[in-house]
Amino acid sequence: MVAGGGLLHRRTLLAAGAASAGALLGGAAEVGTRSPAWMLTPGAPLSRGGSGDGITRLVPDLPFAGSGSSRTPIDLLAGTITPSALHFERHHNGVPAIDADRHALLIHGLVRRPLLFRYDDLLRYPRHTRTLFIECSGNSGSIAAPEPEQASAGQINGLLSCSEWSGVLLSTLLDEAGVDPAARWMQAEGADAAAMTRSIPLSLRDDAMIALLQNGAPLRPEQGYPMRLLLPGVEGNASVKWLRRLRLLAAPAFSRDETSKYTDLHADGTADAFSLRMGAKSIILRPSFGHDLRARGAIEISGLAWSGRGRVRSVAVSADGGRSWADAALDRPVLPQALTAWRIPWRWSGAPTTLMSRATDETGAVQPTRAAWRARYAPGQRYHANAVQSWAVDSRGRITHVYA
Amino acid sequence: MVAGGGLLHRRTLLAAGAASAGALLGGAAEVGTRSPAWMLTPGAPLSRGGSGDGITRLVPDLPFAGSGSSRTPIDLLAGTITPSALHFERHHNGVPAIDADRHALLIHGLVRRPLLFRYDDLLRYPRHTRTLFIECSGNSGSIAAPEPEQASAGQINGLLSCSEWSGVLLSTLLDEAGVDPAARWMQAEGADAAAMTRSIPLSLRDDAMIALLQNGAPLRPEQGYPMRLLLPGVEGNASVKWLRRLRLLAAPAFSRDETSKYTDLHADGTADAFSLRMGAKSIILRPSFGHDLRARGAIEISGLAWSGRGRVRSVAVSADGGRSWADAALDRPVLPQALTAWRIPWRWSGAPTTLMSRATDETGAVQPTRAAWRARYAPGQRYHANAVQSWAVDSRGRITHVYA
Repeated sequence: MVAGGGLLHRRTLLAAGAASAGALLGGAAEVGTRSPAWMLTPGAPLSRGGSGDGITRLVPDLPFAGSGSSRTPIDLLAGTITPSALHFERHHNGVPAIDADRHALLIHGLVRRPLLFRYDDLLRYPRHTRTLFIECSGNSGSIAAPEPEQASAGQINGLLSCSEWSGVLLSTLLDEAGVDPAARWMQAEGADAAAMTRSIPLSLRDDAMIALLQNGAPLRPEQGYPMRLLLPGVEGNASVKWLRRLRLLAAPAFSRDETSKYTDLHADGTADAFSLRMGAKSIILRPSFGHDLRARGAIEISGLAWSGRGRVRSVAVSADGGRSWADAALDRPVLPQALTAWRIPWRWSGAPTTLMSRATDETGAVQPTRAAWRARYAPGQRYHANAVQSWAVDSRGRITHVYA
Repeated sequence: MVAGGGLLHRRTLLAAGAASAGALLGGAAEVGTRSPAWMLTPGAPLSRGGSGDGITRLVPDLPFAGSGSSRTPIDLLAGTITPSALHFERHHNGVPAIDADRHALLIHGLVRRPLLFRYDDLLRYPRHTRTLFIECSGNSGSIAAPEPEQASAGQINGLLSCSEWSGVLLSTLLDEAGVDPAARWMQAEGADAAAMTRSIPLSLRDDAMIALLQNGAPLRPEQGYPMRLLLPGVEGNASVKWLRRLRLLAAPAFSRDETSKYTDLHADGTADAFSLRMGAKSIILRPSFGHDLRARGAIEISGLAWSGRGRVRSVAVSADGGRSWADAALDRPVLPQALTAWRIPWRWSGAPTTLMSRATDETGAVQPTRAAWRARYAPGQRYHANAVQSWAVDSRGRITHVYA
């Protein structure tokens, strides 16, 4: 107690038996493993979203309604917070319509006592809030193609969004369940019709959260309502949406979703599995494809940068195809595992040229060239495509995507 | 030049004749003073907004459709970013339906050359982005009433929102126009049917912006589309929406909007005019009216704090009606003139008690008690109501608003 009336020190952990509303399961652990109705049929398809101002998500024509992705039109937006209605989507079998009162999160496996947390329980826990990006592992994957995709920066790189997420720290719930010392991994399962399942090293537990709110309001169905896992800086699919189970394990489960997908093949036939952390990356949004220059003279080059490893340290920009570089100004605050906006003034002479940007993060990791990035992987490997991208400006100000 | 191809140092100001697209007016300065069609009839009424998850703005039943305010249900939200569709509204004669292609911002008066900036011009300028709260001068005004309003924290305090705003620094435009040394004030006029007009000291110019985007997307009509003034930390009405004119003056204009309203009367008949800066303030959102406690035991007390003068330094919380206080934990980052979320653990014994919070900002300003705040003003003065607020908890966990 630090003051009268029961006030506790601000760093007091509200431990088991205190805020805890997790139900002790005993022999009833199967409660959380039976499939609810919304896992038995494909969910709703991708949607355009939009916030009433004419800007919507970029939704493709899909061969199958249940699996696919829509993108955030990042080149039409500003700042670093993505309006919730424009957050990119990636669904493996549609968006389930979950009754929050009948949904629960089971924590079981290598724990001292399995616990079941209902939505209302979690709403009562200490609230943790952070601004974090989510990037799909497959974002910008088209840069692996032989020819540069002629499309907007949003179409190429829009499996990327950033929100202020609020929820409960995962460590609080794991502490209540009591993690067995033998546990090294946790298997996260979603309550969608794909039962999206990923294995996650327990080393990521410390800043992981169970997100309940996005930009202040309850999660949207396409973002995992009523609850999702959120792993800062980690490829989006591991932040399992509609989270219903966390099973503590000694080794990864090698689920379908992490073996058939989300494993990065090398030319020698080996692969990077569980390559979860997203690399240092930047993109130029203005000017970019679809935003041609209207006049020579002074203009601002601006874009976004981010890294799964922490803060962006610097962004270098080239206006001569990579021969020389200058540091951009970073918009403050520069937050770890969040998007950082940057900008640099430029005087366009009217001559054709090529614009590029290159991020360095606080660990010293530098965004690779496309050639260096491709050299690490088998042809066609499209995950973790964080290579430098280039926009060519022709003498009329027209902008195309090029490999430089 | 700091690199090839025309790159300029990141701190280079893109000055007049460079990015500048401001049209030199010469003898045609009346262009910006003729009233467009949307100023001639009352605009659209308040709207509920809402983001598809059942949470909407709090809209009163109004005697007149054209003037009034709706509130952000801050007690139902989390974090610090208000979804754009839930940002509070304050209109003086409705929301004008402005054609952005026919709207322009005139800067005139005591300037070297009057300039007219169209929306498309401003979109090409260097982009400035900040997370900032906007609070109505009349927010929380009901605490001046003899009896405490029994209503939610959002109903009492919801003329308060916080967004990531992007636009153009006002100083960039003023530098292009060339401010006359005799200028000390600027008169801002909106393109609504009230021609909302405020005088603003030029000392506020440095971090003022012309906002074009809110949370990444174009301003909504009710937030001033296509452009609004944005003065960090200053009472909301001075951040004039639908901005069409800035007239540089040697003295305030004493417009209707700043004499009939937004001037704070003292008991001796004197008044504080142009008391623009919002004070240090905090409110408890959980638990609060409408969020009764369900069980004794550990719970988190949490809320928001902010100050127009800069960063929040600390928030003290009392769970015994103000006899003893303890410091809450502040969510990071703590940004100047932005909302800061805070929290502190509490163990409720089941005994009746009273909860209070008290903010201190980085200038050392402390949120006053209600008695101290009332002592400064004439009875019924409702502006700048930043006094400490109190929630009583009875033995059943029921929460009421009290004066303590």
